Amino acid sequence: MAEQTISAGGLLDIPDSIETPSLVVDRARMEHNIADMAAYAAGRGIGLAPHAKTHRTPEIARLQMAAGAEMLCIAKLGEAEALADAGLDRFVMAYPIVGDAKIARARRLMERASILLSVDSFAGAEALGASMAAAGTVADVLVIVDTGYHRCGVDAGEAADFGLAIAPLPGLRLRGLITHEGHAYSKPGEEGLHDASVDAGELMVAAADDLRARGLDIDVVSVGSSATARHTTAVDGITQVRPGIYAFNDYGQVLRGVVGLDRCAARVAATVVSHVESDRAILDAGSKSVSHDRLGIHVPGAPGGYGLVVDLPGWELYQLSEEHGWLRWTGDGPPSELTIGQRVQILPNHICSAFHMLGQSEIIEDGEHVATWVATGRGESR
Amino acid sequence: MAEQTISAGGLLDIPDSIETPSLVVDRARMEHNIADMAAYAAGRGIGLAPHAKTHRTPEIARLQMAAGAEMLCIAKLGEAEALADAGLDRFVMAYPIVGDAKIARARRLMERASILLSVDSFAGAEALGASMAAAGTVADVLVIVDTGYHRCGVDAGEAADFGLAIAPLPGLRLRGLITHEGHAYSKPGEEGLHDASVDAGELMVAAADDLRARGLDIDVVSVGSSATARHTTAVDGITQVRPGIYAFNDYGQVLRGVVGLDRCAARVAATVVSHVESDRAILDAGSKSVSHDRLGIHVPGAPGGYGLVVDLPGWELYQLSEEHGWLRWTGDGPPSELTIGQRVQILPNHICSAFHMLGQSEIIEDGEHVATWVATGRGESR
Repeated sequence: MAEQTISAGGLLDIPDSIETPSLVVDRARMEHNIADMAAYAAGRGIGLAPHAKTHRTPEIARLQMAAGAEMLCIAKLGEAEALADAGLDRFVMAYPIVGDAKIARARRLMERASILLSVDSFAGAEALGASMAAAGTVADVLVIVDTGYHRCGVDAGEAADFGLAIAPLPGLRLRGLITHEGHAYSKPGEEGLHDASVDAGELMVAAADDLRARGLDIDVVSVGSSATARHTTAVDGITQVRPGIYAFNDYGQVLRGVVGLDRCAARVAATVVSHVESDRAILDAGSKSVSHDRLGIHVPGAPGGYGLVVDLPGWELYQLSEEHGWLRWTGDGPPSELTIGQRVQILPNHICSAFHMLGQSEIIEDGEHVATWVATGRGESR
Repeated sequence: MAEQTISAGGLLDIPDSIETPSLVVDRARMEHNIADMAAYAAGRGIGLAPHAKTHRTPEIARLQMAAGAEMLCIAKLGEAEALADAGLDRFVMAYPIVGDAKIARARRLMERASILLSVDSFAGAEALGASMAAAGTVADVLVIVDTGYHRCGVDAGEAADFGLAIAPLPGLRLRGLITHEGHAYSKPGEEGLHDASVDAGELMVAAADDLRARGLDIDVVSVGSSATARHTTAVDGITQVRPGIYAFNDYGQVLRGVVGLDRCAARVAATVVSHVESDRAILDAGSKSVSHDRLGIHVPGAPGGYGLVVDLPGWELYQLSEEHGWLRWTGDGPPSELTIGQRVQILPNHICSAFHMLGQSEIIEDGEHVATWVATGRGESR
């Protein structure tokens, strides 16, 4: 990590009144990021559905909706239920809904919110439709398409056939297709990211066109992630993008070249609590604060470690216990001196996990602590 | 993993009424584990201080105290505050207390609970003592000793000198020494674990004897972890042991040879939600359920992956997204068939993290769901 990168807008002005470890969010930077992505989507003429799993925080979801998002993306029903409790009422679920309990909850959620559901198995679609039909209602559904990530989803080449097969099922209204082109993260360089994203977008649009040619009325073609958002949507015919991290960014986005440190709105504030030897020290932020998420599989050539300690060039956060961050000196020359009680700022590898770990964010404006926002959807993984 | 190991008491009788993903705890197995360790400590004539960071759940802490624990171990003040809110009132803090805010909170906690505090820096001890003295009180403190883990703590060879240096500080009463011999986990075989543990115990007792020889009244010599508990305490002179995982156990303990699957009291219950190809499938439990904790650095030769899917021999949980568990077939022959909606049981690598991720445990007795216990101390990492 070159030192000039670190100094370029890397530090937030975090008041000492905030105890550590804490997840601290600079409101101005976050709002800039939210507005910037909203402006991009509007300019491109597509809908923005921010992935609420990143923060699971009603106040942040409301800012995203106020900036022009058409709906919020969720992975689990529990997230939507928590956000609906706070008055948010438009969702797209980018996750297969499976099992009677989940289907019953989706039906109840539909009484107070609009929601696009997702399926990737005939058995799942059939059970969903039957339950909806029995309740005298119809669910809007998307087919999850595998455009190369090989997680959920039917193969892109079979998506149209699958859509055609489930479209006649009672209780369902097929609205379109949804993918997460997460595999693009691991392609080398910006060109690799771009090309894989565009490929994914083209597969989606081709499948949608195929369905339309076979008589189905498809109006949702949904893609996205924070790093791929602007690439995948370069393909005409994409109707919705679902980035999550973009409101805050994280070390993964910086290393991927998506943004600079000046666009990173969140930090884990930590304190040096032990420093017995000159070349090692312990922070009070461990896996229960910054998470064990690594970047290796997602960012080619990423350094090891669990985030960038922005204000300690030469020190690496190389290991975590639950409440300990293990620092070692890897810089040139003798280690810089640390003091017991010194506060530092960690840019987490993956900001979604830091929200989950700490469960609330401390909001700062102009160096003042102005609010504590609770991630009410935290832990709502069912 | 040999199949006979998997079948040996591996499965819990989890009712389908429990939605997934959930952390499920079999009460009988947990109580057996709690009683077994309490009996061991009593038989050895030492105090038991279960590490409450594992569960951060008042109901479980009360069971541990009722079984004969002398106090609860905590890492962060927030854990103790949450447990004190539930009526628990005896603690040992195995973590250096640093900073004015933390010291002030410790003083307030001392008004409603007894607590042994820990230090490993002169600056930290001085600030702690000065604050206590100014408030007209005295804090009982332990010196954190590094017996080889190289995390917190003063080197064992310097522990007596350090203790002698801080003992005269106003506002402090030096009560003893505390270590976590976590390095023993990574030693090969049971013999390696045993020898490293005994070495750590001997270093502790030698340092305590040295302090006594120099006129100090040392009554606490505290060690421990679940895997090392019975080894370190083989050394005469140890007065307290602080295991945490033992009440539940986890895949790490099984692979380390500490217990068999029949002693593992907790599982993450999950569901197969996507199974597009015969040799891969997706569970609804990801890093926000089982955690990204790996075993490589702690258990020599441990397999990769994020836990044992107890009821799916041949399938490996090789990768996690936040809400997706990625399964692949690694068994011999053609993959066993999975069905959408099929429920499975994951034995997590590290049970402490699963408690933190899911935030509550579903308690079962004889196959019935009898309670939901909330980890009220979850996220209390400050």
